[in-house]
Amino acid sequence: MTMLSQTQGAALWAAMAGARIIDLAQPMRRGMPQSPNHPPFQMALQRRHGDYVRADGGSAANEIIITGGHVGTHVDALAHVSQDGKVFGGLDAYGIQSHEGFAEHGIDAFPPFVGRCVVLDVARLHGVDHLPPGYGVTAEDLQSAADAAAVEVRAGDAVLIGTGWSRRWDDKDAFIGLTDGVPGPDTAAAQWLIDREVVVAGGETIAFEQIKAGAGHASLPVHRMLLVEAGINIVETMRLAELLDARVAEVLLVLAPLRIVGATGAPVRPLAVIPAEGGIDG
Amino acid sequence: MTMLSQTQGAALWAAMAGARIIDLAQPMRRGMPQSPNHPPFQMALQRRHGDYVRADGGSAANEIIITGGHVGTHVDALAHVSQDGKVFGGLDAYGIQSHEGFAEHGIDAFPPFVGRCVVLDVARLHGVDHLPPGYGVTAEDLQSAADAAAVEVRAGDAVLIGTGWSRRWDDKDAFIGLTDGVPGPDTAAAQWLIDREVVVAGGETIAFEQIKAGAGHASLPVHRMLLVEAGINIVETMRLAELLDARVAEVLLVLAPLRIVGATGAPVRPLAVIPAEGGIDG
Amino acid sequence: MTMLSQTQGAALWAAMAGARIIDLAQPMRRGMPQSPNHPPFQMALQRRHGDYVRADGGSAANEIIITGGHVGTHVDALAHVSQDGKVFGGLDAYGIQSHEGFAEHGIDAFPPFVGRCVVLDVARLHGVDHLPPGYGVTAEDLQSAADAAAVEVRAGDAVLIGTGWSRRWDDKDAFIGLTDGVPGPDTAAAQWLIDREVVVAGGETIAFEQIKAGAGHASLPVHRMLLVEAGINIVETMRLAELLDARVAEVLLVLAPLRIVGATGAPVRPLAVIPAEGGIDG
Amino acid sequence: MTMLSQTQGAALWAAMAGARIIDLAQPMRRGMPQSPNHPPFQMALQRRHGDYVRADGGSAANEIIITGGHVGTHVDALAHVSQDGKVFGGLDAYGIQSHEGFAEHGIDAFPPFVGRCVVLDVARLHGVDHLPPGYGVTAEDLQSAADAAAVEVRAGDAVLIGTGWSRRWDDKDAFIGLTDGVPGPDTAAAQWLIDREVVVAGGETIAFEQIKAGAGHASLPVHRMLLVEAGINIVETMRLAELLDARVAEVLLVLAPLRIVGATGAPVRPLAVIPAEGGIDG
Repeated sequence: MTMLSQTQGAALWAAMAGARIIDLAQPMRRGMPQSPNHPPFQMALQRRHGDYVRADGGSAANEIIITGGHVGTHVDALAHVSQDGKVFGGLDAYGIQSHEGFAEHGIDAFPPFVGRCVVLDVARLHGVDHLPPGYGVTAEDLQSAADAAAVEVRAGDAVLIGTGWSRRWDDKDAFIGLTDGVPGPDTAAAQWLIDREVVVAGGETIAFEQIKAGAGHASLPVHRMLLVEAGINIVETMRLAELLDARVAEVLLVLAPLRIVGATGAPVRPLAVIPAEGGIDG
Repeated sequence: MTMLSQTQGAALWAAMAGARIIDLAQPMRRGMPQSPNHPPFQMALQRRHGDYVRADGGSAANEIIITGGHVGTHVDALAHVSQDGKVFGGLDAYGIQSHEGFAEHGIDAFPPFVGRCVVLDVARLHGVDHLPPGYGVTAEDLQSAADAAAVEVRAGDAVLIGTGWSRRWDDKDAFIGLTDGVPGPDTAAAQWLIDREVVVAGGETIAFEQIKAGAGHASLPVHRMLLVEAGINIVETMRLAELLDARVAEVLLVLAPLRIVGATGAPVRPLAVIPAEGGIDG
Repeated sequence: MTMLSQTQGAALWAAMAGARIIDLAQPMRRGMPQSPNHPPFQMALQRRHGDYVRADGGSAANEIIITGGHVGTHVDALAHVSQDGKVFGGLDAYGIQSHEGFAEHGIDAFPPFVGRCVVLDVARLHGVDHLPPGYGVTAEDLQSAADAAAVEVRAGDAVLIGTGWSRRWDDKDAFIGLTDGVPGPDTAAAQWLIDREVVVAGGETIAFEQIKAGAGHASLPVHRMLLVEAGINIVETMRLAELLDARVAEVLLVLAPLRIVGATGAPVRPLAVIPAEGGIDG
Repeated sequence: MTMLSQTQGAALWAAMAGARIIDLAQPMRRGMPQSPNHPPFQMALQRRHGDYVRADGGSAANEIIITGGHVGTHVDALAHVSQDGKVFGGLDAYGIQSHEGFAEHGIDAFPPFVGRCVVLDVARLHGVDHLPPGYGVTAEDLQSAADAAAVEVRAGDAVLIGTGWSRRWDDKDAFIGLTDGVPGPDTAAAQWLIDREVVVAGGETIAFEQIKAGAGHASLPVHRMLLVEAGINIVETMRLAELLDARVAEVLLVLAPLRIVGATGAPVRPLAVIPAEGGIDG
């Protein structure tokens, strides 16, 4: 049996020693903010302690969970969106969907991501807690935020756009933004991400898109550009406030959505790993 | 804005460079092997491409997901099991459960784990693909597997016991083991884990427990010892075959179950991170 | 083999000949008006035609249905409500509930009702399409409506109170009445029903109760009086507009909720049978 | 206000006086016999008494219900089955299905049935408690059963075929019949029903069809003939044992499935009404 070499282990544990882990998932509970287009989240205890007590005095509790692939913090699969009947790669959308979900481009086709993630805090750039509803984050915003942090986006990275919107989580109607809209990337910002060959991008809103007041989901060009055209997955409804408060522009992101075969999306518990000050060479 | 120092970043990316990520989650689909005591997994597309096509030619698909906290690869919360009406810490089990789930010790009380994990391949120790159903993994088995790998378990670690059982995933009835039982730790093995102050332990079977033929769930002493007495969470139904085949005894484990408030357990997509040969000091 | 005698058959078919059947159930679909306290109704096709086509060219479609016992037109079981820990008959509420639902007084304990039903159109009494939200239907209202129709309520009857509220079904928020309340019986009206020994009573609103603006469900005395004290089941969210328009005060009511063992309520498709003019003796 | 005339009321109540009501629905509970092709039935209390107690001492309980249109006693809508892409009336099956279910021929298009029903007890004809699994009920069987009861089937009737299969309800695997099959009408029997212009037909098995051992659902010609070609709805999984024991060949049947818009089927609580001996003319 091979074991991790002392060298390998030492490097990894040293790099991880004292690392700060930031939870990027919003809590899931009945009544949570979510899109009305998706199944309302429900969790109910099926069995409670005492319902059945074994001869040895032991008892157990469990629950039923009802949700959707786009409820709470989640990752969109490439199959989620089609344009003129096609999904990413020119596949016929109608030919890959069935009672078994999606035979191609389902969330199970997204390789769990563990890698470099650049955090572009556009809210801070503008000196606000959160960008205004309906605000379109521009390519200039992204570049300025990167410059301010002296960080660059590299191919293979994940990029998270900080709109500050997760600071509004407790104001359910405002957060969902049906009436007033939500901030999000405009098409030029989407192109900026595509040009830099990121593999996943996302943020705090339910839909990673600029949605103006009253516009609803009549048009979601960023979803089309990222999912259908560029094959870049999207992560949404992230809890970024704590990460933004940490003022860190580069983290190790772990993004491993549930392995639901053929789904158009899946819930996820993303984590940002920030090594301790000093690191191994400090 | 602070950015991750060159030093910190370098150490982390170097340690991660070329790392191998192993997916430890079983796929979730209708008909998957699961306990009959829990809600049968279901995923059905609610909307398909073409059901509604926007004026701009865009369309979207989404699904309903029905599952339970103990379906597929999952983590047991401490609240999952009670003994004589008490859960971990002596709390009254009946006083903490309601329509809102568990006010204490729910899965949302489990801090996402990112840390050192020791893999004890007991199947390999015995020279088999998988231990026989009903086999009780002993404390000696665990110690021998650790010795064979020249690895030791430290306080704060996660420990995964390799029974090889996930190699039987495609043989549904055998995997579930209602008739013939499944291999798992006996009480002395549980004590071995507790003595070493691990924070989470688990394996490939649906229930992390030795279950003899015909015994069913009449008695689950390991669950009592770990969850109720020691406050050690359990992870089950893991896909360990690939990890066991890699013959690595020490990995970085990321175990971040869905953040479902008050649940007795939650699905998870665990990952094992194995740095590349050489590491930073090589 | 015995067959229905010519006499028996003749009497029944003659009485039924040309009878008008009025559907008293509201349609169930996603987004329907319902209480936010109950699971949101969902129906999604699991399999569609074409997903799987048999060798002989046949295909089938089916669906998943998620609902609750108090969603849409439904009957409340006696177990639905407790007062000071007791349900009807002085039974301990906590002792009869478990993961299997209610061992006593579940909806399966309600014998399907086929019998005489008196319809008291209080809206018409007041010359309105529907009573105002928050209006308390009084015992005098019920007596006056009965007198106006020259009909009396007898022991063993069902009684439906016409508030006209089902005419508001398409105005979802108004119908649910969270803000403005809904009309319903006051406690004296409940006593009037109890005094006449009806076996089931109900109406068009989601909760068969006078609910004033802003009061919510802080107090539901009519439910307590009928379910807990008198053992009279309640039927709610009925589609009565067509029946009220028919201006018939006495009908044969068929009220047979789904036979869900241990449930606190169940959906139902009630029917009002109105014999043709003339009947058998005409 | 018009009230039911004394005459009309008298005729109806007299015909109904002392009538026997037979419940034709099987109980719905977790673990009930059902087809594996449909969502497993689940009912779990969401709120229990005591979870929330109002200031006045009142408390309530409710549940989540998960089921399907073909689980338990149910009626098949015409949209349930297609042949070569067509449903009844030559409609394009693919054009009428969407996220909203079926725009045509859904269960909501089935008018609640209250009318004459002929019960053909073929099991009794053969002198057995239940016909053997895989047995094909022939047109001759139906005619003989009708002759034995001196009853004839008329246009507009419902017809129930007594196979006795509901006597096997408690033997779950045998009842479902995956291995050994189930008794049911053969195609000539289906034609016999069609020739007599019945509007609904059904019986005790999960699928109203002769299914031989090992055949599964590879071919369901009776469904095609009745639903697709003749536009005759099917009712299945009925609890007929008590009705068959009553040895009554002609009853008033009330068949009013839940009004689920666009569904391919819906649960139902059918009732058989048998007037008392003597009736109105006795």
